[in-house]
Amino acid sequence: MFTLTVRDHIMIAHSLPDPFFGPAQRLHGATYEVETTWARPVLDEHGVVMDIGMASGLLGQVLDGLRHRNLDEHPDFAGRLSTTEVIAQHVGERLAAAAAGTEGLERLTVTLRENPDAWASYTLELPVLGGGSGRG
Amino acid sequence: MFTLTVRDHIMIAHSLPDPFFGPAQRLHGATYEVETTWARPVLDEHGVVMDIGMASGLLGQVLDGLRHRNLDEHPDFAGRLSTTEVIAQHVGERLAAAAAGTEGLERLTVTLRENPDAWASYTLELPVLGGGSGRG
Amino acid sequence: MFTLTVRDHIMIAHSLPDPFFGPAQRLHGATYEVETTWARPVLDEHGVVMDIGMASGLLGQVLDGLRHRNLDEHPDFAGRLSTTEVIAQHVGERLAAAAAGTEGLERLTVTLRENPDAWASYTLELPVLGGGSGRG
Amino acid sequence: MFTLTVRDHIMIAHSLPDPFFGPAQRLHGATYEVETTWARPVLDEHGVVMDIGMASGLLGQVLDGLRHRNLDEHPDFAGRLSTTEVIAQHVGERLAAAAAGTEGLERLTVTLRENPDAWASYTLELPVLGGGSGRG
Amino acid sequence: MFTLTVRDHIMIAHSLPDPFFGPAQRLHGATYEVETTWARPVLDEHGVVMDIGMASGLLGQVLDGLRHRNLDEHPDFAGRLSTTEVIAQHVGERLAAAAAGTEGLERLTVTLRENPDAWASYTLELPVLGGGSGRG
Amino acid sequence: MFTLTVRDHIMIAHSLPDPFFGPAQRLHGATYEVETTWARPVLDEHGVVMDIGMASGLLGQVLDGLRHRNLDEHPDFAGRLSTTEVIAQHVGERLAAAAAGTEGLERLTVTLRENPDAWASYTLELPVLGGGSGRG
Repeated sequence: MFTLTVRDHIMIAHSLPDPFFGPAQRLHGATYEVETTWARPVLDEHGVVMDIGMASGLLGQVLDGLRHRNLDEHPDFAGRLSTTEVIAQHVGERLAAAAAGTEGLERLTVTLRENPDAWASYTLELPVLGGGSGRG
Repeated sequence: MFTLTVRDHIMIAHSLPDPFFGPAQRLHGATYEVETTWARPVLDEHGVVMDIGMASGLLGQVLDGLRHRNLDEHPDFAGRLSTTEVIAQHVGERLAAAAAGTEGLERLTVTLRENPDAWASYTLELPVLGGGSGRG
Repeated sequence: MFTLTVRDHIMIAHSLPDPFFGPAQRLHGATYEVETTWARPVLDEHGVVMDIGMASGLLGQVLDGLRHRNLDEHPDFAGRLSTTEVIAQHVGERLAAAAAGTEGLERLTVTLRENPDAWASYTLELPVLGGGSGRG
Repeated sequence: MFTLTVRDHIMIAHSLPDPFFGPAQRLHGATYEVETTWARPVLDEHGVVMDIGMASGLLGQVLDGLRHRNLDEHPDFAGRLSTTEVIAQHVGERLAAAAAGTEGLERLTVTLRENPDAWASYTLELPVLGGGSGRG
Repeated sequence: MFTLTVRDHIMIAHSLPDPFFGPAQRLHGATYEVETTWARPVLDEHGVVMDIGMASGLLGQVLDGLRHRNLDEHPDFAGRLSTTEVIAQHVGERLAAAAAGTEGLERLTVTLRENPDAWASYTLELPVLGGGSGRG
Repeated sequence: MFTLTVRDHIMIAHSLPDPFFGPAQRLHGATYEVETTWARPVLDEHGVVMDIGMASGLLGQVLDGLRHRNLDEHPDFAGRLSTTEVIAQHVGERLAAAAAGTEGLERLTVTLRENPDAWASYTLELPVLGGGSGRG
């Protein structure tokens, strides 16, 4: 199995208004370092999992919707808490949709690092499209 | 699949008295950065894998038994070598026991970084308790 | 010259409502990794710049006033923009005041890392109190 | 499951002469931080996945063939592009061959970090040789 | 004194054809993480050392001349060795020229990290232009 | 001014038997990442501050006396506490002596990182030997 990971970051405000979250109930914010890892069992015709420029471009497009935003007022999180895990899922699902036409990809993991001591990830199996018959 | 990782560190002394370990046979020490990754296929009712405060608290409690200690004289390592892998297993088993009542968790990985160029991990499947029927 | 640095972090919301700041005019947030470096020309009687526990405690107390807060509504930033540089100065001045009775300290630098690609610092000369006659 | 990771680095020149790669078609270079992760379900008789010195030695030997080289003129990459993924596979296959006599190892992952924002990995299942009956 | 640092990276090929440099005489390459630190004694009217976007833009423009290049054939290094120190000086001098009209800046440091275990820097005093009468 | 930094690490045991140090009074240990920064105002005839191989070699030789040792029984620390600051000074003074014949060096800083949240440094002015008339 091969993987390619690219990284970007966003800086957002949000609150987690449930007593479960203690001080994070208050409006605060985070720099999220976002790592996206694409996996495929065999390399494509250029000898890569995905072009790094394409991987960065896809990630950048998805993150553009979140950069410098208050997630409490963001329509994509209306009615639910924007926990780190939920944001990871949001980014993962949009990325998977954006790459839907790319053959051979098998899995995507999105990791969000919120501070030096805590991070979360979401892993998503991708629908198989051609390629991918052999396995590393 | 979702994961949450929290990090802490300990500073311990130990020796590995077997010629196999070369200079590490002598009494020396290490700063271990300890990362614990909890995995679950579906988020809990608060939209998280586990509360970060709870995850940090569990880890802190387990590490408190090791902080600023000489593992050569620690009862939990009596009769065996405290290699990085063995310490990772020790931490993982205690953490799993401490979280035994938490539903939905499926897997735990404990990683110990002993220097910038070497680290080890132990992964443990957790007994299934309710939740977790779907899969990310 | 000797230095000791300790690190902590805060997660805050704020906005920079001046067209100069482009998208950062909107309410967003940041995880700030905060590093505080104390300098003194000669070590104290315990052979340290400052006890690490004391340095961490001082930093923690100052940061407690900022953790999980919206700086746009924080009285200490009323009437001015909470840029990274201004927050560094705020933390530095409070730390210097908190350590005012400690002899021999000569300089304090506070560094705030706001994302993997940008950070700022503020350096403050401390009033000389006894000690500090020799120089490394 | 237990893992042990050791890290080293190489500094190489290469080009990716296919329009697909944009500016990386030109001769350029990279510092690759190379992480190799060995996995085994049960520890060996010394309580480790592999001796760290042995793991570092194996990695160093494989990387010695690449250090300070122009991969465009390297016989191992003749006729194919030396993408990060392909180099990871090259290192992984040579490491697996070098460790072929070691019992109990089950999997090897080689990760190459090419810059702070991009890295790739190759994972290889190892032929089972004795040991490894239980599973973490 | 206040500082602002922004970071970018380049991936270049070069050789150091002098027996002094051992294996680095051969054509090889490097990923350089480039950090540029601007210092000024008093903040500007926006409460910053320099706008982060402007600092990143200046750095990006200077680095664009080096990205994915073989420095052995680069006119700016004709007749001299492109050691890490020399590249740092090259970047520093061009940045200082590009920011020549900005008041209040006092010093610039350019750091190039070539691998996890080695980095170099060049510090340059900037000509004083207005502002900067007080000192942190 | 130019600097060159090289990094290595040691893993030692020690105790700080003074009530001032709380739990660090007990025998424990640390991985110290050791960074040594050499400064000189003008580059040498090869366009460097110092050859990286020489800088690494000097550091390695000094650290060899400390690797995998219990500093409580080390003759160089007899009668004094091996705080991080004191070890930094010990390394700095030995490095300065080892490089005593090298012209043009002006300053040396030794930084010891003991855990992700704490580090200390010692800076030492070096006796001027030829070179170094201009200043960056």
